[in-house]
Amino acid sequence: MEDSNQFAAAAVTNDVDGQAQNQERDPESNSLHQPLLKRNRTLSSNPLAVVGAKVSYIESLDYEINENDLFKHDWRSRAQVQVLQYVFLKWTLAFLVGLLTGVIATLINLAVENIAGYKLLKVIDYINNKRYLMGFLFFAGTNFLLTLLAAVLCVFFAPTAAGPGIPEIKAYLNGVDTPNMYGATTLIVKIIGSIGAVAAGLDLGKEGPLVHIGSCIASLLGQGGPDNYRIKWRWLRYFNNDRDRRDLITCGSSSGVCAAFRAPVGGVLFALEEVATWWRSALLWRSFFSTAVVVVVLRAFMEYCNSRYCGLFGKGGLIMFDVSEVSVSYHIVDLIPIAVIGIIGGLLGSLYNHVLHKVLRLYSLINEKGKLHKLLLSLGVSIFTSVCIYGLPFLASCRPCDSSIQETSCPTNGGTGNFKQFNCPNGQYNDLATLLLTTNDDAVRNIFSTGTSSEFHIFTLTIFFVLYCILGLITFGIAVPSGLFLPIILMGAAYGRMLGVAMGSYTKIDQGLYAVLGAASLMAGSMRMTVSLCVIFLELTNNLLLLPMTMLVLLIAKTVGDCFNPSIYEIILELKGLPFLDANPEPWMRNITVGELADVKPPVVTLHGIEKVGYIVEVLRNTTHNGFPVVDEGVMAPVGTQTGATELVGLVLRAHLLLVLKRKWFLQERRRTEEWEVREKFTWVDLAERWGKIDDVTVTKDEMEMYVDLHPLTNTTPYTVLESMSAAKAMVLFRQVGLRHMIIIPKYQASGVSPVVGILTRQDLRAHNILSAFPHLAKSKGKKGH
Amino acid sequence: MEDSNQFAAAAVTNDVDGQAQNQERDPESNSLHQPLLKRNRTLSSNPLAVVGAKVSYIESLDYEINENDLFKHDWRSRAQVQVLQYVFLKWTLAFLVGLLTGVIATLINLAVENIAGYKLLKVIDYINNKRYLMGFLFFAGTNFLLTLLAAVLCVFFAPTAAGPGIPEIKAYLNGVDTPNMYGATTLIVKIIGSIGAVAAGLDLGKEGPLVHIGSCIASLLGQGGPDNYRIKWRWLRYFNNDRDRRDLITCGSSSGVCAAFRAPVGGVLFALEEVATWWRSALLWRSFFSTAVVVVVLRAFMEYCNSRYCGLFGKGGLIMFDVSEVSVSYHIVDLIPIAVIGIIGGLLGSLYNHVLHKVLRLYSLINEKGKLHKLLLSLGVSIFTSVCIYGLPFLASCRPCDSSIQETSCPTNGGTGNFKQFNCPNGQYNDLATLLLTTNDDAVRNIFSTGTSSEFHIFTLTIFFVLYCILGLITFGIAVPSGLFLPIILMGAAYGRMLGVAMGSYTKIDQGLYAVLGAASLMAGSMRMTVSLCVIFLELTNNLLLLPMTMLVLLIAKTVGDCFNPSIYEIILELKGLPFLDANPEPWMRNITVGELADVKPPVVTLHGIEKVGYIVEVLRNTTHNGFPVVDEGVMAPVGTQTGATELVGLVLRAHLLLVLKRKWFLQERRRTEEWEVREKFTWVDLAERWGKIDDVTVTKDEMEMYVDLHPLTNTTPYTVLESMSAAKAMVLFRQVGLRHMIIIPKYQASGVSPVVGILTRQDLRAHNILSAFPHLAKSKGKKGH
Repeated sequence: MEDSNQFAAAAVTNDVDGQAQNQERDPESNSLHQPLLKRNRTLSSNPLAVVGAKVSYIESLDYEINENDLFKHDWRSRAQVQVLQYVFLKWTLAFLVGLLTGVIATLINLAVENIAGYKLLKVIDYINNKRYLMGFLFFAGTNFLLTLLAAVLCVFFAPTAAGPGIPEIKAYLNGVDTPNMYGATTLIVKIIGSIGAVAAGLDLGKEGPLVHIGSCIASLLGQGGPDNYRIKWRWLRYFNNDRDRRDLITCGSSSGVCAAFRAPVGGVLFALEEVATWWRSALLWRSFFSTAVVVVVLRAFMEYCNSRYCGLFGKGGLIMFDVSEVSVSYHIVDLIPIAVIGIIGGLLGSLYNHVLHKVLRLYSLINEKGKLHKLLLSLGVSIFTSVCIYGLPFLASCRPCDSSIQETSCPTNGGTGNFKQFNCPNGQYNDLATLLLTTNDDAVRNIFSTGTSSEFHIFTLTIFFVLYCILGLITFGIAVPSGLFLPIILMGAAYGRMLGVAMGSYTKIDQGLYAVLGAASLMAGSMRMTVSLCVIFLELTNNLLLLPMTMLVLLIAKTVGDCFNPSIYEIILELKGLPFLDANPEPWMRNITVGELADVKPPVVTLHGIEKVGYIVEVLRNTTHNGFPVVDEGVMAPVGTQTGATELVGLVLRAHLLLVLKRKWFLQERRRTEEWEVREKFTWVDLAERWGKIDDVTVTKDEMEMYVDLHPLTNTTPYTVLESMSAAKAMVLFRQVGLRHMIIIPKYQASGVSPVVGILTRQDLRAHNILSAFPHLAKSKGKKGH
Repeated sequence: MEDSNQFAAAAVTNDVDGQAQNQERDPESNSLHQPLLKRNRTLSSNPLAVVGAKVSYIESLDYEINENDLFKHDWRSRAQVQVLQYVFLKWTLAFLVGLLTGVIATLINLAVENIAGYKLLKVIDYINNKRYLMGFLFFAGTNFLLTLLAAVLCVFFAPTAAGPGIPEIKAYLNGVDTPNMYGATTLIVKIIGSIGAVAAGLDLGKEGPLVHIGSCIASLLGQGGPDNYRIKWRWLRYFNNDRDRRDLITCGSSSGVCAAFRAPVGGVLFALEEVATWWRSALLWRSFFSTAVVVVVLRAFMEYCNSRYCGLFGKGGLIMFDVSEVSVSYHIVDLIPIAVIGIIGGLLGSLYNHVLHKVLRLYSLINEKGKLHKLLLSLGVSIFTSVCIYGLPFLASCRPCDSSIQETSCPTNGGTGNFKQFNCPNGQYNDLATLLLTTNDDAVRNIFSTGTSSEFHIFTLTIFFVLYCILGLITFGIAVPSGLFLPIILMGAAYGRMLGVAMGSYTKIDQGLYAVLGAASLMAGSMRMTVSLCVIFLELTNNLLLLPMTMLVLLIAKTVGDCFNPSIYEIILELKGLPFLDANPEPWMRNITVGELADVKPPVVTLHGIEKVGYIVEVLRNTTHNGFPVVDEGVMAPVGTQTGATELVGLVLRAHLLLVLKRKWFLQERRRTEEWEVREKFTWVDLAERWGKIDDVTVTKDEMEMYVDLHPLTNTTPYTVLESMSAAKAMVLFRQVGLRHMIIIPKYQASGVSPVVGILTRQDLRAHNILSAFPHLAKSKGKKGH
């Protein structure tokens, strides 16, 4: 388990590029009759991706229903009561996902608020006593220890817990399983690490981690506990398949977003718009149920904590940054600053994406040097953050409290409060300390605060903005659980408020609203969501009249951002080498057929319906394919044929072949089995398991000469495409139906033609991989389609 | 164009049922080698549906990209500037859809408020002067005339404008085109008819019609004007296809909902959850833009009307039924009434669906008798409504104004107002008149009103509830544009408030909130939406703290309702005979293969790549198919074949064959054409048109002997399934990818095997049709699946 190059995957793919570009390819020469294998033109099927900070093998998921004899028999025999069990359990699990996510989110909030709160109180105490150095040492020391805790956990116990986790969840729902993402260790490290990192005052949020936590909970519940200590409850067997796990993880990620922003509708929409690839209305309805439970749990805790049982846990209802008391009236002139905010947000957002990409590449060079380097990097960022946050407020001048403002508590010395005294004399406050010496949540609340137009000096806001731009770029890539939402909100709010201050009396919109709109614009500029962001902001700010403004800002920012680069999540997916399948095919994919793709792949390996054990073992040892077409030769000819026909029986999975070898379900002679024979040996529950490797299986020499009847284990209804199908349409089919394998069949019908031309997987349909095998297609690359 | 039996479609299908049930079918006997055509076991492909009140032929839509040579050439040659034109136009059209929908919605609101307002003022005037009979005659007379206007327009000019239109839009987005749904006449009749019907005080809303209006606008914009007077603008040619029209209509329906409820996010979600079958994130983003424009237009008009330029048009910001001033605090005990509301809502909703179904069947018997009967039915309902609304308030006793309530205006005599004086002495008000003698919108606002716990007597509410139950059932089916939302909201609000009054002091929740929750529960119980309804209610009521309660109520009501019957829209779709393809296949569809389905269909008609004109004409005359597989025989054998092979070239559409015949693109000899030859004769713009009928084409006897090269017009990349594919999976593919035709190919590979087993269309995959051909499958019908 050594660390290796964080971006090895990208490097490997580049090599393939390099080879392929040496040859110009003549599109006409690519007919069916060429030799099948051309080493220097193979489609790369690279099963590597960066997981945590390691390169790991990743596996595709099977969302297709494997309709083999066993499944069909089970389907027919499934009693009404079992169906009810399944439906009941589905809803119970959705409820539990919501409940546990809600509880854990509250606990994280409680822990963060208390740890950070006591830390800040102590620091303020030192400052009041003018013991500035001691204050700094205490502040930086605490932050250092908290960061150390988070980083050590992440580096040594669960590298997959670092970062937000949202890209990996996105990939999972697209059909790519990243190993060790949803385990119990990851969950625990993520929870504790997130508490540590956020309490350490680093410029990161708990939103992304909460989405990951929700998904972990969902996955663990679905499989009945951690990998080694699963509950063997019979009911849970229904959920031991990729489809139901996917549904659960979708519910989990909705619940996570809901818990992060206390935005139930926004959570569902976030999962729908940003995370999930595949959706149906029943799932919408179930994830909505999960988020409803989360909201109820959160509310209950809030009620409880309002009675001061929760230490320093602040007040607050369901809404985080409430600006509902502002009444908004619209004027035509306000359109201009709104458009400006949107444009700047789009520009800054894409710039942020661009620079963050560079920083992450640089960090990968540091991280690959070893665990110690990763730790040092995290701790270095922590110290830098502490120095800036503690030191910079001394640069700001003290400002007198405005007695006209109703706010009675100016200056404040407590944990929260909008006018921090810091080093100022009584009756004055330090506006930079108000923003910096506080938790990130409170910072957002302060900068969103309305009716306080003279509170922040533009110089203060500029320092804050520049500082958080730097911190936002250097903090994200370190080895602790980190969310992207809050850093972006902080940056955006700062520049929005700056703009508001700069506008001065030319505008009637409150400065707090400018901050909200700025945050929204930067989110849209970087993450490129629209509807879900809009609803999240609606639920965060509790001001419906803000909606048209927010919409406009989001639309402009996303449009501007899209002109420059893809969304930040797509950049991270690309960087990690996760084979994400985009929603829309590239236009040039219409100019290539799947038959041509099959030509540049190694020839497809088929099995016979009744196959020799020795051959199966050989095939499993020498290939890495996970699915094999099953073909019967010389079958009883259908009416009208002159000679014996070949028949495409279907597709058999590697996992099922391994299971047969392991259970030694061998036949002495070459014969078809009866249905009861296979049902005696296997149940469909066995088939759902993913068995180990071929190397774990021992087959004796005698057994090698025996036979296996693959028919009952073969999925007789695989999705197929004609070889003349364009890659674009094949990709649409692949993604819409959620496939793992797609069999290419010939358009010719004649004796001697193989009934299988090839087999397509996710990697074969990725634009990048096709382009590396067919570089001439890139000429038409610039065009955009529907 | 006579009226015929409104439910002829259903009747025809029942006949097929009857025939099929005469024979028990042995599933084993159904092999590939049976005679292909069995008259008494054919899958019914009934292209009839009830449109308006007539039975019409309906056509399926082609959402698949037809990748033939012409398309591919055009795709390759399309310059960057044309792509930009297309993108620019797409957004411009989305903007225009929003703009026009917003403007028309405002105009409808203005007209309704003014017409109904002056009518009510005049009636109140009569009542104040104790001229009760004159008042009634004026009231009933005005209503009669307004209903007459709406009904005459609907009956004589655009029968498709009657009803809400939402089911037809749902079917359109699923792939079924109902004729005359989106024309200019329909649009105008819908607008005027909606104004008339709503102003006439009938128990119907303008919400459904607005959705239809939005879709009409979108469709008309996309095709450049009404059918006969289209703008021939070159840019618009990009939109002359079913895919782009579908996207536009989706935007239109979102805009319509948004305009109806002033709920931009709710509008998008409604289109997503309830209306659209097929969705992608780019479309989400575009329809969001449309709804944003609608909201801005509405706001602008509101601002303008606040200055009293709009006659009796009431005040009101973006939110219709504002209950935002109520602060909600949650207590565990409140869960019980909330659950009760949900359960009753679900029960009542499904009961409403059930009874409405019966009423609509009864109405169809009346409507089929002729146009006069339809008119009389509408006018009868109008008179009954007028009598009840005017007469019933006399039954209610006068109640003294509560001086403790801050409401200064009690009693009122104006158009709006919460405490109508009606026939009461000064200082008293008639609470039933407050609810009845007003527009429906105001009635909802009054019944939702908060902080007025003693306003309505429970006796009043009961009368109101019973009356609106009756009206809601008898009004929906009459021949005027009518929405379902408002009647259901009124019923639901009444029973919710009744429950609130009944609870008395046991609850701390405001009675207005009970009314809101009641309305939500009945909507969920009848329409079975969750997320979109929740967001619509959120945006209607402007109270985020209500959200968890609303969610819970919606979830319970939908669950309860689903136990009894499908949603009201599904019932109407079924009743109209529209072949809607459900999202999930029935479980028993896994037990039948598409090969078996093909066996009970008439044999598939294939064409050769180079075909005789005479044969094409014969095929087009004698079949009703809209697509034909193209097969080449004796082609150069691929490597390894022993004899000449047959090749499946693709699928050619009837429309394109007709075009060839019309343009007389015939060849003297049997030869392949060059690419330039076809490009000289046709452009891809021609191919997008749907040409007339075969009877309109005249081909001379000499021409009959000539040949056509079908290769350049053939879609070479049709979606295909193996004959062993289960119907369930085939249906998933069909719906997810949005197909019109799906070719079934054999699983056998041998000389002499036809490369096409059959062809599947939407009708073949509908559960009902399969069951009528394979009644034995019904045995396992009860089971539910994933």
